[in-house]
Amino acid sequence: GVRGRWAKASDASQAWILVIIIGICVAMIAWFTNVVQEWLSDLKQGYCTSKWRYNRQFCCWGKAEKQTWNIIYIHFGLQFVGLIEYETCSDWRLWPEVFNVESESGVYYTAMAMYTFVDPTYTNRLGSIQNFTKLKEEEEEEEERHINGGGEEGKKADQTKTETKTAYYSAGSGIPEVKVILGGFVIKGFLGFKTLFVKCIGLILSTSSGLNCGKEGPFVHFACSVANIACRIFPKFNKNESKKREILSAAAASGVAVAFGAPVGGVLFSLEEVSYYFPIKTMVRSYCCAIVAAMVLKITNPFGTGKIVLFEVQYDKEYHLFELIPFLICGISAGFFGAAVTYYNIKFQHFRKRSFVGKYPVTEVMCIMILTALVSFWNPFTRLSLNDFALNLFSECSSTNDNRKLCAKTAAEIPQILSLLFAALIIKMGLTVVTFGCRVPGGVFLPGLVVGAVTGRMIGLIMQYLTLSYPEAWPFDSCAEDMISHGKCVIPGVYAIVGAAAGLTGVTRTTVSLVVIIFELTYSLTYAGPITIAVMAAKWTSDAMFPEGIYDLLIDLQQYPYLDSHKSYAHTLTIMELTEYLPTIDLDQTTTMARLTQKMNLLAGMGYGEDGGLPILSQGNILEGYIATSELSHAIEQVAHETQSYQNSLYPQNIDDTPIYFKAGQVYDRSFDATIGFSQPIQGQNDEEHVSSLSRDFSNYVDHAPLTIHHNASMEMLMDMFVKLGARYVCVTQSSGRFLGIVHKRRLLAYLKELEEE
Amino acid sequence: GVRGRWAKASDASQAWILVIIIGICVAMIAWFTNVVQEWLSDLKQGYCTSKWRYNRQFCCWGKAEKQTWNIIYIHFGLQFVGLIEYETCSDWRLWPEVFNVESESGVYYTAMAMYTFVDPTYTNRLGSIQNFTKLKEEEEEEEERHINGGGEEGKKADQTKTETKTAYYSAGSGIPEVKVILGGFVIKGFLGFKTLFVKCIGLILSTSSGLNCGKEGPFVHFACSVANIACRIFPKFNKNESKKREILSAAAASGVAVAFGAPVGGVLFSLEEVSYYFPIKTMVRSYCCAIVAAMVLKITNPFGTGKIVLFEVQYDKEYHLFELIPFLICGISAGFFGAAVTYYNIKFQHFRKRSFVGKYPVTEVMCIMILTALVSFWNPFTRLSLNDFALNLFSECSSTNDNRKLCAKTAAEIPQILSLLFAALIIKMGLTVVTFGCRVPGGVFLPGLVVGAVTGRMIGLIMQYLTLSYPEAWPFDSCAEDMISHGKCVIPGVYAIVGAAAGLTGVTRTTVSLVVIIFELTYSLTYAGPITIAVMAAKWTSDAMFPEGIYDLLIDLQQYPYLDSHKSYAHTLTIMELTEYLPTIDLDQTTTMARLTQKMNLLAGMGYGEDGGLPILSQGNILEGYIATSELSHAIEQVAHETQSYQNSLYPQNIDDTPIYFKAGQVYDRSFDATIGFSQPIQGQNDEEHVSSLSRDFSNYVDHAPLTIHHNASMEMLMDMFVKLGARYVCVTQSSGRFLGIVHKRRLLAYLKELEEE
Repeated sequence: GVRGRWAKASDASQAWILVIIIGICVAMIAWFTNVVQEWLSDLKQGYCTSKWRYNRQFCCWGKAEKQTWNIIYIHFGLQFVGLIEYETCSDWRLWPEVFNVESESGVYYTAMAMYTFVDPTYTNRLGSIQNFTKLKEEEEEEEERHINGGGEEGKKADQTKTETKTAYYSAGSGIPEVKVILGGFVIKGFLGFKTLFVKCIGLILSTSSGLNCGKEGPFVHFACSVANIACRIFPKFNKNESKKREILSAAAASGVAVAFGAPVGGVLFSLEEVSYYFPIKTMVRSYCCAIVAAMVLKITNPFGTGKIVLFEVQYDKEYHLFELIPFLICGISAGFFGAAVTYYNIKFQHFRKRSFVGKYPVTEVMCIMILTALVSFWNPFTRLSLNDFALNLFSECSSTNDNRKLCAKTAAEIPQILSLLFAALIIKMGLTVVTFGCRVPGGVFLPGLVVGAVTGRMIGLIMQYLTLSYPEAWPFDSCAEDMISHGKCVIPGVYAIVGAAAGLTGVTRTTVSLVVIIFELTYSLTYAGPITIAVMAAKWTSDAMFPEGIYDLLIDLQQYPYLDSHKSYAHTLTIMELTEYLPTIDLDQTTTMARLTQKMNLLAGMGYGEDGGLPILSQGNILEGYIATSELSHAIEQVAHETQSYQNSLYPQNIDDTPIYFKAGQVYDRSFDATIGFSQPIQGQNDEEHVSSLSRDFSNYVDHAPLTIHHNASMEMLMDMFVKLGARYVCVTQSSGRFLGIVHKRRLLAYLKELEEE
Repeated sequence: GVRGRWAKASDASQAWILVIIIGICVAMIAWFTNVVQEWLSDLKQGYCTSKWRYNRQFCCWGKAEKQTWNIIYIHFGLQFVGLIEYETCSDWRLWPEVFNVESESGVYYTAMAMYTFVDPTYTNRLGSIQNFTKLKEEEEEEEERHINGGGEEGKKADQTKTETKTAYYSAGSGIPEVKVILGGFVIKGFLGFKTLFVKCIGLILSTSSGLNCGKEGPFVHFACSVANIACRIFPKFNKNESKKREILSAAAASGVAVAFGAPVGGVLFSLEEVSYYFPIKTMVRSYCCAIVAAMVLKITNPFGTGKIVLFEVQYDKEYHLFELIPFLICGISAGFFGAAVTYYNIKFQHFRKRSFVGKYPVTEVMCIMILTALVSFWNPFTRLSLNDFALNLFSECSSTNDNRKLCAKTAAEIPQILSLLFAALIIKMGLTVVTFGCRVPGGVFLPGLVVGAVTGRMIGLIMQYLTLSYPEAWPFDSCAEDMISHGKCVIPGVYAIVGAAAGLTGVTRTTVSLVVIIFELTYSLTYAGPITIAVMAAKWTSDAMFPEGIYDLLIDLQQYPYLDSHKSYAHTLTIMELTEYLPTIDLDQTTTMARLTQKMNLLAGMGYGEDGGLPILSQGNILEGYIATSELSHAIEQVAHETQSYQNSLYPQNIDDTPIYFKAGQVYDRSFDATIGFSQPIQGQNDEEHVSSLSRDFSNYVDHAPLTIHHNASMEMLMDMFVKLGARYVCVTQSSGRFLGIVHKRRLLAYLKELEEE
């Protein structure tokens, strides 16, 4: 009927409303982050006299005067003399002006001082904030421990956990954690409001301080946090984990959309890299979410340029056929550098984890900060912010824009630029290796992109050198026409774009989504061929070095239980060899509270304290059900809690002797239950009897139809159950239903890891 | 070691080699189809005197003279006078010239005559070819029946099947069938070489005859056929159904890539519409396959224009903010028309199936052909080929190009164009309704696109009328600047593009892939916003009318067992209510051949003749295994065959009494088996005894670990097993392993259909 249709429509529209809300919120967060970050970045060079809270762009809004400043770029050790074109106005005052420094070298050292002074200030604050988060997390764990606390052994296990896993939720990009969460693992608080808030502030400080990290990854984390919080609006999504994950997948796309102005690329990135299970309806919602976020951000215009991303460029020139060879070289070398950065970064993170470095995160960040400031300032390119550098690498040279000295007018200028660029490449690679993974928010996307772009630009410059030096030689003679019409043959900026795509492929190993992101970033499909060739070359090059992207390596490093759904294995073990016979509950025997706790501790000792469970067997070891430890501890807690308040008033009975039933219809005394929660127990004469018959029914917590597999089934079927059905355990039975044991996800993961290492 | 690594690398590279080969082959087929189709299309207007096999483009290659011909477009009943600019040359002769007709009306009627004469010639040939395919299919079925033939009842079931399902493999777009095949159903011969060949010829004839159908869908079918054939190169893919399906999914992308010059769009279309299970590695391969196909096709240059698609256009102008409203209207109306076409098309197909129309497919095609020729010729727009019409709808008006009279110079011209366009819309919609689904190869993509584009262009013209009539009124005053700089405010061609996307959404219900296809087709991301808004509006509008796209409706119509993985249901039945207790094999009793055949017939009578099976139970109804009817009939056949050749020589025993065992280790006499296939049986004295102990071991055919589900499990789990694990049946058991019955995919589908209809 009409009514049913309406109900159905309103039910269906909930998801749409949700993704639109998420899109808008993500855009607002991106806007805030971008605006504040720009202001803080500019504050390193000067401040706005009319309105202190404006950045340069907005301070000079409508009254910009293009001036040539020779304040910052003077007299290097490298004897590089440069001028900088700087859009500014009388309201915007540079620090050397403020302090009335006039001599050339004085000006330079003031700039240098402010640069190095302001930076560590940010870092300091960053450090405190990080510390704050960390402490907060520990406090939470403390609380949890109090609640959990049952038995000495359990406490000990908890203790170990706290020691080994101090999670810095707001550090890094957050993409690996989001992947793991979408894969079905619960990381409590990671997508909460507190983490979102702290990470947002931290990200602003870390990026504006000039640390070599991007905000693309964290944007994905923010988007998922927003989605997680927004899901609370509709109970349908809040209660159903799988529906919630679909929304999180959709939100991840909006994160990329605001980071790169690439809605379609965002959807593909969510699909290719982030999401675990991505049904088609999620795709449409993702797209809706992404496009809303991108459009809202475009309207709010955070940079005052009408662009979403600072390094957006636009190209319309065609490439020459012979350029496909250098594009291929671009792909191979940028892919190689990207993979190399990944490799050494992971090595360094392992080192950090194992050594003393990891124990002083704040000091480490300070050191990296100072290192960054010192190393970067001496190279004219690395001193630029990452965004600015990327923009100039991508840009086309023209008579009015020399891309901050990246352009060469004659062939003779090229070697010098090349040597500076090579230095910049080394510096950026080194900084990326040490920076990504330290305890500040910040992603590896932009640094990876810049490494690739520098490689590409260098190859572009070499090509330019060749075409300028040998204009008559084959195959450069095909350029003649272009040389006449617009004075150039190859465009180094295009090589930078191609290289950027390839470099990112080397880091993340995603392909289609990167191609699309680059399309959307450059507003052009002209270079579809070159970009694809480079990306595929980079993919194959880097896969030949080692097969995993940085996010998967990080998941490995953090030892999250993540089962990669994209791989295929040649199995060496059978199901029975993977099966473990862990503690079970026998329905024939009476299970008391004490026994149950004992079994739980046994499980915890075997490492299944959190994600394990107890199979429930009836006579002849027939599998009747399964109760997860999480459910069980919840149930035990409740009993303990109730009994405590109860005990205080009346009953002196020890709860350890309470018998527990797991099957509805087993001996069970309702009277006890009836009294609790309604009123004070009736004070009666037969208290003694009452107490002896006290029992608890846990059958509500039992999964009466656990997932089973026949012991003769194929390993592929077992894998499918874990990967496609998202199981955390599978019970192994005989045809007769006899329980033979259990295969836990963790056991499977350990086995798969061995398999890979072989 | 190095060796293992090399082996691994060469194993991994197989898939890449395969998709590259497929990409190249698909491009070649597309090239062939395009070239021949162009030639045949042009043959309706004239022929090349220098080289008869050249089409106009190539005949006049390098010697084109732009001429204004008034031969075809003269004196309509609608009093429309038009001239046509026609690139031609002295080598290309039009039919009126050939026949020396000179008077104006004479010229016109000659053109008309040739048009209507040549067309049905094609159709006739088409008809014969279709008939040929159909007969072939029937022959094959005939053969199959002979092989299968066992028992009267089986024969009867087969007979009914043949009657109800005369499959025209080469008819229609083929996308629904490809979807069903990727969903796990086997349609024998559908992706074979014969179907590919016949459909390719048929498609050339149907599209060049001017029938209202496109070649996009068939291209997807071709690509999958090529993939299916190419898989035979590597046994790894030929043997493994699931790996083969991954390659088919990848190939589907290349089909769209060559049809629209949209590699990324192709990947997304394969993902969103065609594929059932699309792991990430398939995505990369799809992209590789699609880009290879697109690049090879671009190099072969089938149209002599350097474009892959005839209606590619390029836009660089920005839109105005107020235009978002008409774009939204575009989306709603084009979505509505698209959905309406779908609705009536399916209605008509139902009518065709039920009524006498379906019995005379060739006559029907002839009638549609003549109807198309008669109806289309009187409207200047519908007379154009679909490609040409789409190109002109999409194009921007300029002083040199009036888009075949689609452009208006003054506001006064607009109403006339509008009325003609409206007539064209009605004609095209009507023709699409009757054409798609008739027994010729041809897709609904291009007709749907044209319906949307006409709608869009009409709205664009209305907007143009408004801006020209009320240039001062709000909000059109924002146009003032544009009016001065390039003399126009709104561009109707852009509305056509937006409408096309929306129209296609109404037909297929895909969103993201359509947006990307249109991006790639127009080489522009400028209109990302408008296109997205229109597509979402179209999606919601059409979903409100009815929720399924045309391909799903066709799958429904053909009653293929396809379980849509994208929907969610509110279940009304439990697992036990879906469970059927079908015939089983009892290990306690001796199963003879006769009994087995009887059980098979029983199953066939219940409709599970093809995809059913017999559960194997031991004492106490414990499920021990499962044997599929397909396996079983194969085994029975073999026994019958062997016994026959054997009987002729020696044994008079009736095979019906042969006992059959399903469990290894059951009573089993090896001597019989040993004699067969090695040598003539040993003529011995104890023949009598020997025969009595004849038995057959079928245990190799038995699946010893069939998929089971607990009778108390949730319907969601059951659905997951079918959708995600791709099960065709699930056995329902108790905890003790006692068999309670079986849930077949077909039973589930019937239930889901009921659920939907409620």
